[in-house]
Amino acid sequence: MIPYSNIQTQVSQALAEDIGSGDITAALIPENNQITAHLICREQAILCGKDWFNEVFQQLNVIRDITKIHWTVNDGDTITEDQRICTLTGNARSILTGERSAMNFLQTLSGTATSTAHYVKYLEGSEVKLLDTRKTIPGFREAQKYAVRCGGGYNHRHGLFDGILIKENHIMAAGSITNAVQNARNNSPHTLKIEVEIETLDELQEALLAKADILLLDNMKDDMLIQAVQINSTNHGHKAKLEVSGNITYERLSNLAHIGIDYISSGAITKHITATDFSLRFES
Amino acid sequence: MIPYSNIQTQVSQALAEDIGSGDITAALIPENNQITAHLICREQAILCGKDWFNEVFQQLNVIRDITKIHWTVNDGDTITEDQRICTLTGNARSILTGERSAMNFLQTLSGTATSTAHYVKYLEGSEVKLLDTRKTIPGFREAQKYAVRCGGGYNHRHGLFDGILIKENHIMAAGSITNAVQNARNNSPHTLKIEVEIETLDELQEALLAKADILLLDNMKDDMLIQAVQINSTNHGHKAKLEVSGNITYERLSNLAHIGIDYISSGAITKHITATDFSLRFES
Amino acid sequence: MIPYSNIQTQVSQALAEDIGSGDITAALIPENNQITAHLICREQAILCGKDWFNEVFQQLNVIRDITKIHWTVNDGDTITEDQRICTLTGNARSILTGERSAMNFLQTLSGTATSTAHYVKYLEGSEVKLLDTRKTIPGFREAQKYAVRCGGGYNHRHGLFDGILIKENHIMAAGSITNAVQNARNNSPHTLKIEVEIETLDELQEALLAKADILLLDNMKDDMLIQAVQINSTNHGHKAKLEVSGNITYERLSNLAHIGIDYISSGAITKHITATDFSLRFES
Amino acid sequence: MIPYSNIQTQVSQALAEDIGSGDITAALIPENNQITAHLICREQAILCGKDWFNEVFQQLNVIRDITKIHWTVNDGDTITEDQRICTLTGNARSILTGERSAMNFLQTLSGTATSTAHYVKYLEGSEVKLLDTRKTIPGFREAQKYAVRCGGGYNHRHGLFDGILIKENHIMAAGSITNAVQNARNNSPHTLKIEVEIETLDELQEALLAKADILLLDNMKDDMLIQAVQINSTNHGHKAKLEVSGNITYERLSNLAHIGIDYISSGAITKHITATDFSLRFES
Amino acid sequence: MIPYSNIQTQVSQALAEDIGSGDITAALIPENNQITAHLICREQAILCGKDWFNEVFQQLNVIRDITKIHWTVNDGDTITEDQRICTLTGNARSILTGERSAMNFLQTLSGTATSTAHYVKYLEGSEVKLLDTRKTIPGFREAQKYAVRCGGGYNHRHGLFDGILIKENHIMAAGSITNAVQNARNNSPHTLKIEVEIETLDELQEALLAKADILLLDNMKDDMLIQAVQINSTNHGHKAKLEVSGNITYERLSNLAHIGIDYISSGAITKHITATDFSLRFES
Amino acid sequence: MIPYSNIQTQVSQALAEDIGSGDITAALIPENNQITAHLICREQAILCGKDWFNEVFQQLNVIRDITKIHWTVNDGDTITEDQRICTLTGNARSILTGERSAMNFLQTLSGTATSTAHYVKYLEGSEVKLLDTRKTIPGFREAQKYAVRCGGGYNHRHGLFDGILIKENHIMAAGSITNAVQNARNNSPHTLKIEVEIETLDELQEALLAKADILLLDNMKDDMLIQAVQINSTNHGHKAKLEVSGNITYERLSNLAHIGIDYISSGAITKHITATDFSLRFES
Repeated sequence: MIPYSNIQTQVSQALAEDIGSGDITAALIPENNQITAHLICREQAILCGKDWFNEVFQQLNVIRDITKIHWTVNDGDTITEDQRICTLTGNARSILTGERSAMNFLQTLSGTATSTAHYVKYLEGSEVKLLDTRKTIPGFREAQKYAVRCGGGYNHRHGLFDGILIKENHIMAAGSITNAVQNARNNSPHTLKIEVEIETLDELQEALLAKADILLLDNMKDDMLIQAVQINSTNHGHKAKLEVSGNITYERLSNLAHIGIDYISSGAITKHITATDFSLRFES
Repeated sequence: MIPYSNIQTQVSQALAEDIGSGDITAALIPENNQITAHLICREQAILCGKDWFNEVFQQLNVIRDITKIHWTVNDGDTITEDQRICTLTGNARSILTGERSAMNFLQTLSGTATSTAHYVKYLEGSEVKLLDTRKTIPGFREAQKYAVRCGGGYNHRHGLFDGILIKENHIMAAGSITNAVQNARNNSPHTLKIEVEIETLDELQEALLAKADILLLDNMKDDMLIQAVQINSTNHGHKAKLEVSGNITYERLSNLAHIGIDYISSGAITKHITATDFSLRFES
Repeated sequence: MIPYSNIQTQVSQALAEDIGSGDITAALIPENNQITAHLICREQAILCGKDWFNEVFQQLNVIRDITKIHWTVNDGDTITEDQRICTLTGNARSILTGERSAMNFLQTLSGTATSTAHYVKYLEGSEVKLLDTRKTIPGFREAQKYAVRCGGGYNHRHGLFDGILIKENHIMAAGSITNAVQNARNNSPHTLKIEVEIETLDELQEALLAKADILLLDNMKDDMLIQAVQINSTNHGHKAKLEVSGNITYERLSNLAHIGIDYISSGAITKHITATDFSLRFES
Repeated sequence: MIPYSNIQTQVSQALAEDIGSGDITAALIPENNQITAHLICREQAILCGKDWFNEVFQQLNVIRDITKIHWTVNDGDTITEDQRICTLTGNARSILTGERSAMNFLQTLSGTATSTAHYVKYLEGSEVKLLDTRKTIPGFREAQKYAVRCGGGYNHRHGLFDGILIKENHIMAAGSITNAVQNARNNSPHTLKIEVEIETLDELQEALLAKADILLLDNMKDDMLIQAVQINSTNHGHKAKLEVSGNITYERLSNLAHIGIDYISSGAITKHITATDFSLRFES
Repeated sequence: MIPYSNIQTQVSQALAEDIGSGDITAALIPENNQITAHLICREQAILCGKDWFNEVFQQLNVIRDITKIHWTVNDGDTITEDQRICTLTGNARSILTGERSAMNFLQTLSGTATSTAHYVKYLEGSEVKLLDTRKTIPGFREAQKYAVRCGGGYNHRHGLFDGILIKENHIMAAGSITNAVQNARNNSPHTLKIEVEIETLDELQEALLAKADILLLDNMKDDMLIQAVQINSTNHGHKAKLEVSGNITYERLSNLAHIGIDYISSGAITKHITATDFSLRFES
Repeated sequence: MIPYSNIQTQVSQALAEDIGSGDITAALIPENNQITAHLICREQAILCGKDWFNEVFQQLNVIRDITKIHWTVNDGDTITEDQRICTLTGNARSILTGERSAMNFLQTLSGTATSTAHYVKYLEGSEVKLLDTRKTIPGFREAQKYAVRCGGGYNHRHGLFDGILIKENHIMAAGSITNAVQNARNNSPHTLKIEVEIETLDELQEALLAKADILLLDNMKDDMLIQAVQINSTNHGHKAKLEVSGNITYERLSNLAHIGIDYISSGAITKHITATDFSLRFES
């Protein structure tokens, strides 16, 4: 659902940094050679990045014969070790020149989708949603947020423009949580909920009174989280959504899945990357 | 040594994806508030990314007072847990708006520098150089290659335009290693060395006869590598540089450090990312 | 609060379309002539566009002496007929070359701010907020939304990316309002409220049951709006915010100001433009 | 006749500001739903903007089925209330995502074409041509100048690069009208006529002596204009074209149509916008 | 008089193609070395290109100490063999990295200015102006047209947008010269003169009757040109400006200087380039 | 082998500078006129630039019928006086609007290819390769380097990023040739050879000892070159490639062809341009 023009731009920048003034080794290959290659995944993973992969060859096809790509799976599908993912047939120079760029997209985005899925697995059976953050690789945020969705996670705000998150400094500047929430409600687009980051139960109480829509419970221990859920659920007239962040490990996810919070947000799923291992095997 | 205009472009794209139509929460902060903040590293690491971090605030300073940034360390320096890295003083809105983007650059690039340094440590005392590859995050290659240098590694070619690497498909198309090397020598810029990827000792012999400048020994076991070194060192009239790739683990690095090869190239140092953990602490 | 880089881009495009390959008449003026000029408003208005006006001369100053601009008012201020708005002193060529582009920004944006203020005046004494829409001049949305704020209005979503507005076609595709709201709640960022466009009181009931956050009452007559307010205010457990759109005239605004709705959105304030009349008078 | 690449750029910027990181509501609609919609005009107008409207869907079609658009009228045609302008058939997501941007182009440009036609109507039966000016919406000049032509008007210079217009400051700098015209003739491209803005009959005499090609009679009363026409028509050896500007109302146009001037230029037709009212109606 | 933003863009593209991912040899020079260098011209020439030369170092200065450039001459000045043109003082890396790009601008543009001056010399003592054409190096037209002015020539239209030139195909399509001129007069901006390319004296007569403003006499022999001048000068009621093109050699220029034509246009001065020979000498 | 996206960018910039806000004369031609035209070369030359020529019409084809271009020759072919190069059939407006831009590419690039071929002819029968330099038209380097290859020459490094060339200043900064070569070997990509510019035989000796890969013998007389070849060929253990530059005339090329050097580099083939003379003839 990423606008296609954004994918075009990302791919053209990736090709520019890799190809620059031209692929000098490709000149060794006759201009009209045809080849067939199979993309293999060498480990279990969640696939992500087909549109970027396709676009690489689309952009290289302009003056040569088209590269045909036949996929057997879709973004979001689980792929297994040694599974054949797609088959490419086309001009040898195009395929060899685009190979690395196309695979860099696929291995990076599948890596993020797969990491996300590992976290999500620990939340199975609960209603808690795993959210991403703004801790992403610069220039790659939209693509990574798409990968998070492919991995079963959900997106927090995309940036500073589409969500209100009131943090400590905003509160200090406004004088109090109450003031900050009130200011935000008066001046921000009415289509946005108001989220407040809190670190103590007192702040929680104040934020609930101010009718904040979402509370980000940052770096709280599990027992304090349980108290926070309790306070929110017994509050009269207004209940906030509860989001938990900070020190989210696999073990802790299982614990947090059933205590009554709504969301867990994790920077790790996008700021760390474990690239998925793909291989392109050429038919001889 | 990255051209500054490239840093400007990367930072402006990162700010665009984060700020979009504007930081709506920043409006809670009076326009002329001043703050001071300290950047802390929460784990031992190699610092990388100062120019990107500075540029974020440079671009946000245009219509407000300038953010002063006082650094105590340089790119490539080892930083320790809880060390204060730099201090920012300036307009509160600018600092809060730029915080996440600036730290995303720093944590990603320091992560790559630190991973590189971990590998390089195993090569201490030898002349073997650790090289990066083209397996990078799309759009981030130049920055990552700079991070590799900060971590004590060396750069392989930047892309398809500044190095010749003859692989299996090029050889098949040319008919033989001999032909491929000859074609490359005749047609490529004379300023570039010719590198050939080989997988068997027979191929090694042929490539040496063809006077290839560098041999990429891909996915060879250690004992075969030792034979390859032997063959090369006793070859008459021409000795190639030897580069090893494939399955490079920490343990194996120690073994490979002293068998007589020249370079080890690792995709892992750039395709995987373990972001370094930084924190921005505001003075109250 | 518009990111400065966006203003830079808009101004450079405006200068490109006006100056192209160069201002040929400017050559009649000696290169170092200095002039002073006063910007006058020829009618009562709300000022908007100072940053764009300044940026025009900023971009023209690069190789000549700087144009000093002394403003006596701010964006959002009411200015009166014949009031002196600012004084420019600097290189004659720069000022004459930039004059038209600078004034085109100011007259267009002040026009939108002023139109907005005319509407807002009719809502004085009520809590109802006047909202803009996505009916804007292509390429000028952000600037116009800023002008709306200067005129005392509020912004609806900036685009399709930062607000959910479920319309007839979305409802048909989802099968029912209930399904559509449920799908949106499950899949959209949790930071966004869910708004549904409704045209009948039955739809209103269904949307309230589905706990839509905001209801857009489109093209309803005043008596039906009064019923809608009544239904919403007596609904148990969930009250939506009510937004009214369609056929918003000055007269109707007065009527709607006190019936209990929350927002009125108007396409007219941004899709129509009545440019404010400014004049630049040169000191002789 | 606007270069197509300029239309592509304008549309891609309009889509970027509206769609940003993606149309979040569109996700409620199944990926392959097909719909048909009819574009209706709700008032009499001159159509303008088909190429921009088409281009919106062209850019959204890239990865989905193509949207077919069947038009029944052309740019420049008069369309009547409730007339069906075109029919769109295609992917529901594409059509809903592009609807607002496409209509924003059409309503703005048809608005300018229609305003122009209102003015032109008062000049019927005369040889006087209605001209536009450089008072346009920033970034939209070329498109508006095209709309003026669709409405029966003519274009004055596009910018500072393709016409010489000597104003008061240029004259002061050159010392006299005579000097200014002489300098312009010596130094400007010989393909351009020389136009001088004059405010008195003495200036008119001097400009005629200097053989200016066009005289811009700015803010003159009707009786002075009649004198100016007289002086020009009885001048020996050189007659200038006469252009009138300032306070051009409908009533005055009728008066000016037959006094012997050549052109009337109006800022109002492009600096003010009265968007034409279109509506997209979906087949159920 | 070229807009500065155009110079910025050209220089940044030139630096991008030369520096790419970084100047690898520059790393041999310590980061803070200072040097002084003198720019020498090794042959007599007309200088052109200072702004481009300066801008190269401006763009390289962003993160290092500024390069100071002290010029002793201006664009358009005649410079002699071994004359010192300017002195640069600054960071050694900046100067060495920018040297080639800066000199490429200067040698190319001074070459065009110098070639132009050679032609213009043959027209001394006459009123005939030497004009350039649209036969330029792609992407370099504006810069070359500026160089032509520095060399004492004049500019014909910049492109297809700022001048009307009716050629054979336009005449064929319109049916006759008369029709073509009439159509152009009715539909083109009134600020532009109408130029017609003619090859016979009959066409000349028809074009004069149609009151074309300028006649381009293409590929006519000298005696036919003399007849053309005669016909034009004795024509009643309308005299056109006469421009001559085709086979313009130095010898012929002297002949054409005094036969009564107004302009001579030459493609050679911009389509051929004889780069001026500059040398940068470093102080040791 | 130039990346197609680079050709697209160059052509779109060339069209922008020529067409700007539109081809005003083209309006004289009915929208659907079809024409056929033949491209003729008026002198013997080496053809270069087909892809740019084609791309011009490709970009103009978007909203009109396609222009069909039938070529009879390829880039690198020798073409003779009056030879028909290609035939264009298509919309008259497209062909007339694109004609000049398309031919500007072809005449400039064929000019460079042809100049190169003139030099190369003098090296026939020898193994010496003619190289280009970085002395190119700004913004046109890649295209010119392609033209050099079409003319039978070879490319030196494309820019500062893909080759190491140690010059006098680098040596001074490093302290000696020995140090400079050593530093370069330690810090530059191992895929690049190390070239050193030398002016004396002592420097040659030192560079050979330092095992520089390539020696650039700059501005040496022929007899000194012969000595240099002698020293290199009798050096033990390491022989460098020898490149000669400075004052390369046709006569000297013949002398240098057989003295044992490897490369001759010439700035003249790219810094000077003698455009090839093409003509487009329209069928009537």
